[in-house]
Amino acid sequence: MPIKTMDDLFLHTLKDIYYAERQILKALPKMAKAATSQELRQAFEQHRTETEGQIERLSQVFEMLGKPARGVKCEAIEGIIDEGQSIMEEVEDPEVRDAAMLASAQAVEHYEITRYGTLIAWARQIGHDDAATLLEQSLEEEKSTDQLLTELAEESLNQAAA
Amino acid sequence: MPIKTMDDLFLHTLKDIYYAERQILKALPKMAKAATSQELRQAFEQHRTETEGQIERLSQVFEMLGKPARGVKCEAIEGIIDEGQSIMEEVEDPEVRDAAMLASAQAVEHYEITRYGTLIAWARQIGHDDAATLLEQSLEEEKSTDQLLTELAEESLNQAAA
Repeated sequence: MPIKTMDDLFLHTLKDIYYAERQILKALPKMAKAATSQELRQAFEQHRTETEGQIERLSQVFEMLGKPARGVKCEAIEGIIDEGQSIMEEVEDPEVRDAAMLASAQAVEHYEITRYGTLIAWARQIGHDDAATLLEQSLEEEKSTDQLLTELAEESLNQAAA
Repeated sequence: MPIKTMDDLFLHTLKDIYYAERQILKALPKMAKAATSQELRQAFEQHRTETEGQIERLSQVFEMLGKPARGVKCEAIEGIIDEGQSIMEEVEDPEVRDAAMLASAQAVEHYEITRYGTLIAWARQIGHDDAATLLEQSLEEEKSTDQLLTELAEESLNQAAA
């Protein structure tokens, strides 16, 4: 699909995050299974449920545009997930593995935060305020998840210091 | 290098961001050249200078650890940069191209923000407060750059609305 207008760019980036969210949905159960800390496992499980809702919202945005919900391969998220999974499989120590997975999950969150931020700005620019409102709900969820992960990282830091 | 301890994980992630920063240093002049908006070009040029300083700080952190400054291939940043560059080359309309490059630069910033945040937490955990202090300077620069890019995006939004 050639990108000529802001509408094309918006649709392309929507397909990018739709692909990314579906990859994340597949990765989260593996991460939850590999997590040792119960809190981290719960955070991954909770985010899995949220991700399903976010994919549903993206489907609604495709519908608002009158386009089929389709992904376009997103090298960025593949890179972030692959990096996280190869470390996850390699590290034997549970504390170190949890720390690596937590960091990897935060990289995923930040990718989503930047993409949703961009999509919301563009949706307003091209007159899709309804789409912007939906995407803002997902952005807020991603920010909360990132915040929760930061708190978990700080807790384990304090435990290590104690 | 096998990752067994938090020290190994810290060193591995330091190599990851070192590789990423060097890729960003190579990408920024191309982005500056392709930018139509003078403000966006200046933002890319200014961030190029900052990136040089950030690479220098990473070299200092390697020195603190008594390790040679070396990168390890980071698929995540390659994905983010490749995605940005393919759109940059494809889009003909200057306004749409600038918007795409701005979004791509923000994805880069968010990757750096998450990695520096993680490295700072781990540096404190393993007793490298000196490294944490250095990395905090880079984190603040990345956050400022992201903020500047958000302001530029909002400006063009307002211009489009006017």
